[in-house]
Amino acid sequence: MAEGSIWEAFDKASHYKLANLIAIVDVNRLGQRGPTDLGWDLEAYRRRAEAFGARVFEIDGHDVAAIDQALAEAGDLSGERPSVILARTIKGRGASEVEDREDWHGKPLPPEMAERAITELGGERHLLVRGPAPADGQPRLRADRAIEVKLPVYDRGQKVATRKAYGEALAALGARPDIVAMDGEVSNSTFANLFAQAHPGRFFEMYIAEQQLVAAAVGVGVRGYRPFASTFAAFFTRAYDFIRMAAISRASICLAGSHAGVEIGADGPSQMALEDLAMMRAVHGSAVLYPSDATSAAALVEAMADLDGISYMRTTRGAYPVLYEAGESFPVGGSKLLRSADDDQVTLIGAGVTLHACLAAADQLRDEGISARVIDLYSVKPVDTATLSAAVAATGGRLVIAEDHHPEGGIGSAVVDALTAAGRAELSVAHLAVREMPGSGTTEELLAESGIDADAIAAAARRLLA
Amino acid sequence: MAEGSIWEAFDKASHYKLANLIAIVDVNRLGQRGPTDLGWDLEAYRRRAEAFGARVFEIDGHDVAAIDQALAEAGDLSGERPSVILARTIKGRGASEVEDREDWHGKPLPPEMAERAITELGGERHLLVRGPAPADGQPRLRADRAIEVKLPVYDRGQKVATRKAYGEALAALGARPDIVAMDGEVSNSTFANLFAQAHPGRFFEMYIAEQQLVAAAVGVGVRGYRPFASTFAAFFTRAYDFIRMAAISRASICLAGSHAGVEIGADGPSQMALEDLAMMRAVHGSAVLYPSDATSAAALVEAMADLDGISYMRTTRGAYPVLYEAGESFPVGGSKLLRSADDDQVTLIGAGVTLHACLAAADQLRDEGISARVIDLYSVKPVDTATLSAAVAATGGRLVIAEDHHPEGGIGSAVVDALTAAGRAELSVAHLAVREMPGSGTTEELLAESGIDADAIAAAARRLLA
Repeated sequence: MAEGSIWEAFDKASHYKLANLIAIVDVNRLGQRGPTDLGWDLEAYRRRAEAFGARVFEIDGHDVAAIDQALAEAGDLSGERPSVILARTIKGRGASEVEDREDWHGKPLPPEMAERAITELGGERHLLVRGPAPADGQPRLRADRAIEVKLPVYDRGQKVATRKAYGEALAALGARPDIVAMDGEVSNSTFANLFAQAHPGRFFEMYIAEQQLVAAAVGVGVRGYRPFASTFAAFFTRAYDFIRMAAISRASICLAGSHAGVEIGADGPSQMALEDLAMMRAVHGSAVLYPSDATSAAALVEAMADLDGISYMRTTRGAYPVLYEAGESFPVGGSKLLRSADDDQVTLIGAGVTLHACLAAADQLRDEGISARVIDLYSVKPVDTATLSAAVAATGGRLVIAEDHHPEGGIGSAVVDALTAAGRAELSVAHLAVREMPGSGTTEELLAESGIDADAIAAAARRLLA
Repeated sequence: MAEGSIWEAFDKASHYKLANLIAIVDVNRLGQRGPTDLGWDLEAYRRRAEAFGARVFEIDGHDVAAIDQALAEAGDLSGERPSVILARTIKGRGASEVEDREDWHGKPLPPEMAERAITELGGERHLLVRGPAPADGQPRLRADRAIEVKLPVYDRGQKVATRKAYGEALAALGARPDIVAMDGEVSNSTFANLFAQAHPGRFFEMYIAEQQLVAAAVGVGVRGYRPFASTFAAFFTRAYDFIRMAAISRASICLAGSHAGVEIGADGPSQMALEDLAMMRAVHGSAVLYPSDATSAAALVEAMADLDGISYMRTTRGAYPVLYEAGESFPVGGSKLLRSADDDQVTLIGAGVTLHACLAAADQLRDEGISARVIDLYSVKPVDTATLSAAVAATGGRLVIAEDHHPEGGIGSAVVDALTAAGRAELSVAHLAVREMPGSGTTEELLAESGIDADAIAAAARRLLA
């Protein structure tokens, strides 16, 4: 109850009139290291829960009849408010040696103490209690695979932001009845609003409460739907524990973070995700996708909907040219060779805005007689080791990796980790990343200042070949 | 006001009776994409703020006299409650084209609209308003460098948990009057309780509210103190946005996360930090320290107290042998060669529990006639590139890196990133990390299951040499 996320949850439960939500608070007065902030002050808990829109039942948590009655009353779903049962309890009750005592949290009793406690509690018994099973008629929803999803189609060269393609693809994917979307009060920036307009009954505004945004996605997933939760990529850092715990809980959720990196320009560093790839790669079993154009973004949105575990798409604010024809395939774990020739001397690797910089750098280098291979690393995790290894073999191990992210844990690490894991690695790497604190400026100014624009990439390639 | 962290803050402000805290809420009804959850329902805000212990003033936020009066009343510090001024405002007031309208959040007005707005607001003016300066007598506190800090001393071979050394060193460091500590209700696990016992006036219990734990550390730092904030390493994921924003705000704070990795054993994956190194390395300008013994832990606690920016120490639950004599120096950015010979064939790199496994593996290998170099990588960021490069040169590029962390963004990435950044790298890397979801078990079982124990390290070394 001391975590702010609890109040995000109550706020949303009352906003959405979840009369079928019953929270039970075990108020036992003790934390791990001593008394809790509010102790047995049930009135303080009541005021808070009521202020956040819940109806409150106060009971003696050791009185089974009282528990039963509170649950029965809370189970009356005719109202519009979630219920909170505040159960005053005594920690360790019935085992007098530890009852209401500090310093016994999370510790097993020594065997002799355990034996005395069991005796005091009435001896060993074997009771089997079954709670009510979920009501019939609510099977796990499954997507009807026969439903045709008509992804948006983009023309090559047309300038479209990947965040826009995210929204358009998600709205199209909404033809599947299992798709649900939610957003943290920025749906006009993430373009989740396109889904909201097309499928208002399956869109949930979670306001500026990212922990509950992810928590609600997990809950929706448990009920058999496939949730897509979006906000600015930077703001998912608010929910990292929820994302981590979702992975541990074997949840399958799709996250989309927009406005990544210094590319956003004027809004300044607080709004720039520069840690999100590191954060999301480190989540167990995650997929981390970073499309560079609208066609791949749309295809990957559809792919995410069928991935197990935590999948994350990083999208970009600005509009950049579409690179791929509609219908091109983008398997998770793959990559695209956008420039490739037998005489390639260096490999340029990027994703998102830096891929477009890599392409421009390759043009610069070609004019100087340098042939550069260009890899679109749209799948940062899992990563396409085979294509990377082939590029290493073809270009003498010379790699320029450019990313709109801090140097730690992002695309550079993904590439180098994969190559060193693949066996003996002989590498000459120029790793361009955001190493200084960015300020506010135009996209072009900030990409140049960070040393991740086309000029910086071309210069790094020349240095590797010098 | 929709973020749960706000309620963590009000809870702590009322708990600590911060009558000198005045929060002003600009209730303008509109978010970025439309109306807020509570709109202009000032009564709802009032109920919430009062339930969390604040006294509340409701005003018309456009009425300067009302603002002045509310601030004067809130400035009466004789009470024990923080104040909240709920200021009802109209977004864009006075510029009729945007007043109370959606879709103008965070957007500059087009030049002609801006001109009309300025005219409507009374034309261009040049007003200079100075708020009151901070009261005299509260200069930024500076540590008295003449104060001698007597760090705890440990005997080599003695088994001491690094978390215990953290608490003992912090308590000793408390001789400096600028040192302040706070903890998230687990100080009997992190051993911050040793500081609390020694310096109760400079210890703050933040209960289970990690966002406010870090926020309070930043605030304490702004006032010239040096804060140390501790909790389980896993739980800092709750505060990632606060840590990220602390770096952007150029704050200097020291964080200590205990109970890292599968080493904790029985408590299961929700309590195991397996993403923290990735998360903390990706923070701008951070230092990431991971001592393996009590001597180095104590020395690094003292070093952290004088580092600029965000510093993080990862500590271990279990007790392991002290490796270093008291007085040994552990510069941030350094490492230690614990085994080294001219005929070294392979380098073993670890930190924390895996360093002890590396030492045991080196013993196994020595018995087989294989000479293994062992590096204690206590400074994960910045990392000791010179020692790593020398090891690569000495051992044919053969490295076994073992870490109690997911494979992404941790020690393995730190090593390989540094070596590839240093120039042409020819590497044969075996990277041992926690790749499957751990369960609950003994430390030994889980280290073996994850493939990061001495046997796994020795086997990896043999494979590299095969």
